[in-house]
Amino acid sequence: MEAERPSNTSELILALDALERRRYALASAQAVLEFSEIRDPPEAAAGRGVAMAELEAADHELLCGEEAGELLASLEARAGELDDDVRARVRVLGRDRADRLKIPAELESKRVELVNRSSALWREAREADDWGVLAPALEEMVELYRAIAASAAPGVGAYDFWLDMFEPKSSEAFFIELFDELAAGIAPLAAGVRERMAAGDVFEPRRLAGPFDPAEQMELFRDAARLEGIDLGRLELGSTIHPFTSSVDSHHVMIANHADPDDLLSGLLAALHEGGHALYESSVDGRFDYTCLAHGTSTGIHEASSRFYENYLGRNRAFAPALRALIETRFPEALEGVSELDLWRLVNEVHFTPSRLDADELTYPLHIMVRFEVERALMAGELSVAEVPERWAELYERYLGVRPTGDLEGPLSDVHWSMGLIGYFPSYALGGVIGAQFLAAMKTAGVPVDETLAAGDLGPITRWMVEHVWHFGRAEDTAEILEEATGEPLNPAHYLAYLEEKFGSASPLFEGD
Amino acid sequence: MEAERPSNTSELILALDALERRRYALASAQAVLEFSEIRDPPEAAAGRGVAMAELEAADHELLCGEEAGELLASLEARAGELDDDVRARVRVLGRDRADRLKIPAELESKRVELVNRSSALWREAREADDWGVLAPALEEMVELYRAIAASAAPGVGAYDFWLDMFEPKSSEAFFIELFDELAAGIAPLAAGVRERMAAGDVFEPRRLAGPFDPAEQMELFRDAARLEGIDLGRLELGSTIHPFTSSVDSHHVMIANHADPDDLLSGLLAALHEGGHALYESSVDGRFDYTCLAHGTSTGIHEASSRFYENYLGRNRAFAPALRALIETRFPEALEGVSELDLWRLVNEVHFTPSRLDADELTYPLHIMVRFEVERALMAGELSVAEVPERWAELYERYLGVRPTGDLEGPLSDVHWSMGLIGYFPSYALGGVIGAQFLAAMKTAGVPVDETLAAGDLGPITRWMVEHVWHFGRAEDTAEILEEATGEPLNPAHYLAYLEEKFGSASPLFEGD
Repeated sequence: MEAERPSNTSELILALDALERRRYALASAQAVLEFSEIRDPPEAAAGRGVAMAELEAADHELLCGEEAGELLASLEARAGELDDDVRARVRVLGRDRADRLKIPAELESKRVELVNRSSALWREAREADDWGVLAPALEEMVELYRAIAASAAPGVGAYDFWLDMFEPKSSEAFFIELFDELAAGIAPLAAGVRERMAAGDVFEPRRLAGPFDPAEQMELFRDAARLEGIDLGRLELGSTIHPFTSSVDSHHVMIANHADPDDLLSGLLAALHEGGHALYESSVDGRFDYTCLAHGTSTGIHEASSRFYENYLGRNRAFAPALRALIETRFPEALEGVSELDLWRLVNEVHFTPSRLDADELTYPLHIMVRFEVERALMAGELSVAEVPERWAELYERYLGVRPTGDLEGPLSDVHWSMGLIGYFPSYALGGVIGAQFLAAMKTAGVPVDETLAAGDLGPITRWMVEHVWHFGRAEDTAEILEEATGEPLNPAHYLAYLEEKFGSASPLFEGD
Repeated sequence: MEAERPSNTSELILALDALERRRYALASAQAVLEFSEIRDPPEAAAGRGVAMAELEAADHELLCGEEAGELLASLEARAGELDDDVRARVRVLGRDRADRLKIPAELESKRVELVNRSSALWREAREADDWGVLAPALEEMVELYRAIAASAAPGVGAYDFWLDMFEPKSSEAFFIELFDELAAGIAPLAAGVRERMAAGDVFEPRRLAGPFDPAEQMELFRDAARLEGIDLGRLELGSTIHPFTSSVDSHHVMIANHADPDDLLSGLLAALHEGGHALYESSVDGRFDYTCLAHGTSTGIHEASSRFYENYLGRNRAFAPALRALIETRFPEALEGVSELDLWRLVNEVHFTPSRLDADELTYPLHIMVRFEVERALMAGELSVAEVPERWAELYERYLGVRPTGDLEGPLSDVHWSMGLIGYFPSYALGGVIGAQFLAAMKTAGVPVDETLAAGDLGPITRWMVEHVWHFGRAEDTAEILEEATGEPLNPAHYLAYLEEKFGSASPLFEGD
């Protein structure tokens, strides 16, 4: 039997390739099954659930089994003989394996069961507009997440543990400092806008005339993907309610978007946002195909990419002519009487609303801070799940000056917690900060961002992102990429300067023509 | 370690359940990945190929591994303690395992490689209209198939081995006898029709006026599925070039159909045909979910079902009013001046053509006989692949009185051989024979077929099929189902009587109004 084991380095690498190809197949199947939910017949749901759980279990057995452990240990012991790519694969696979092994099997299976149960309860709770329908299951979830953290990382705070799971090397203290800095910068800007709104000192832009044919909107979303520079030979575009992006590998990315017959701009901006995710996934170096490196490295960099294309490009004043031209090819009548300035203002209207999904760039981080504060209190055991709606309303009052009219507008508006994503929200805000730092860096490097946007050619911008951020895949971590691409660690000053320029008192956003 | 092995019968059954669920997940992923080819972006092809091969390998390891072998042997040893369902699962899994193990691993991997290569060459050969592009690879395929048969079943003819792989318990002698009987019945009918056509004694029906909007055709195909009685909550309908049906399980069946803007009837009849396959798969008893029994039992019964809905119902004189009404809801203008009789004649026009896909019910078996004769000669080593086009033309001349104009109309018109499906064609003809026997049996049992068809309600017919044919899944074999459903073994007399009534000299098909 011993003879069958790989004994020299090249045999070990072949065994690694085989392990990674098998895992690729399982992950590829999971991605396609998950995406196919958007068009599967309703009766298919139960079988898909069984298949997904089995595929996940098969992958867990592969990665966490003794054979993979021995293989990775043998390769680590020969790190000096490995090239950079293989060394990166061994490092990332080893980290993934360690992360999975941290959570005891019985707690993990309880977690999976609870996530299934509470995802279904979230839908029921929304139909009833009643947080109480979801609360008991979520209370179990919070207790379980605290128990998992206590078991997996005894010396570390529960919230620290989960933040680090979603954004490696982050922590509660890291986000407290970041959000304090953001809040200090955003509060006066928000107050200024609120004053102008109260004084009626805000220009009312002319709106697009609908309705907008959904099939034609899907074609427009494809046009937007082409404009962003996505290789259409790699893109699958589907229709759903809540937009999302998924990927099999760099050669097969999938965007599901929503075409609302009454709202063209929301779908179009979502197309630009999801396109940023798809660009990232499809720009990972092809030599990482069929390995664990062939995806984006973190939620933070992913959101930096998506928010970059949605906000820093899509909502940019310089881009308004190209945005108008894009819409004009498919919906010329809708634009009658709508100037470029109108369009720019339309996609930048500030709302003090309880809805994160309708949030503008300025207030978006405040929505995240509400969720951060609630998560902190839950993980610290200082707040019960039953008390969340009241705390939520207080925080919205404090940060945005509005209160939700009920649970549906309140904590039931997000699906994340019911899916087990506690500690996920902060990376959205982090993505905005990182993206602004990328924007500043590419301008410093001489990329003619505004000229490029005005011409409707995103090529130079996308090429910078490929070269400095995306092509690494998971071979580099968030912090490494950030430092190498921008020459400094995370620096929120770029983000705050950007917001000041866009929403400050000197901004043309609210001026008359 | 011994303690972990299942030791009592209920533990053995739990282990069987676990094996079957894991295999279900792998097969489910393969089905969805394969079906998703119809909309995947072009660049996704390579990765899908890798994933499919890995999933297949994972399934092979599961089914052919020692653990499954021991489990099945232990269960067989306790057959007396098992209920009928579990006993059937053990039997069918054991047969599948034995079939897989019959083919030596090195020949099987050569086969997979060769199938991939020749499928691609088939497309190239079609573009070049040149059999010579494909012939060398197909020559290798024929040699390999003969070698596999010699290794797997030393005392058996090569063609016998492969016929049995596709339709268990069939053989070359079985099909020779069947085709002799069919040819004897069909030849005089075909000669009669040919004489009437030569004499100009064939009524020319009024044709449907196109073009036909493809999106609206897809809706019509969905209407047809509903009319057949398919649970639309289980059906996924997609668009492709060559129609096919696939299934995950009884709760998730997938039909891909072709909507030709110039030809409504071809797509509609394909919808009825594929609907028969989908009805079969979706009618298997739900208690077989996640087991090896949850699919159709053979190609013969599958084709019996699909050809039943396409021909015996769809092309039935009694169905013409319902067929006309079906079309009328979506394409009323196309039917102007087209009577029910016209429509019936349109879907039953006899063509002496080199194209199997355009064949009518009468000549269809003759097209299969051509392929059967070529396969026999190839497997016997009596014919080289290079000689196939000439032999093909001679056989077409003999059976149908026509010669193909080139390779494209000749042996390149079917993809089957290049996909490794040597021995598959005969089951198509067998399906027609079995279906006619079902039709006779349900009439004998008192199902009011013609009245039901005239009313456009296929319920009583479909219920008979569910009860007598479909619900068994793979728990019963072709021969058992046939005998239990019709009270006799295979009997081609029903099929020949059906053809005589429809295409004989007394048929209203060719009469004037």
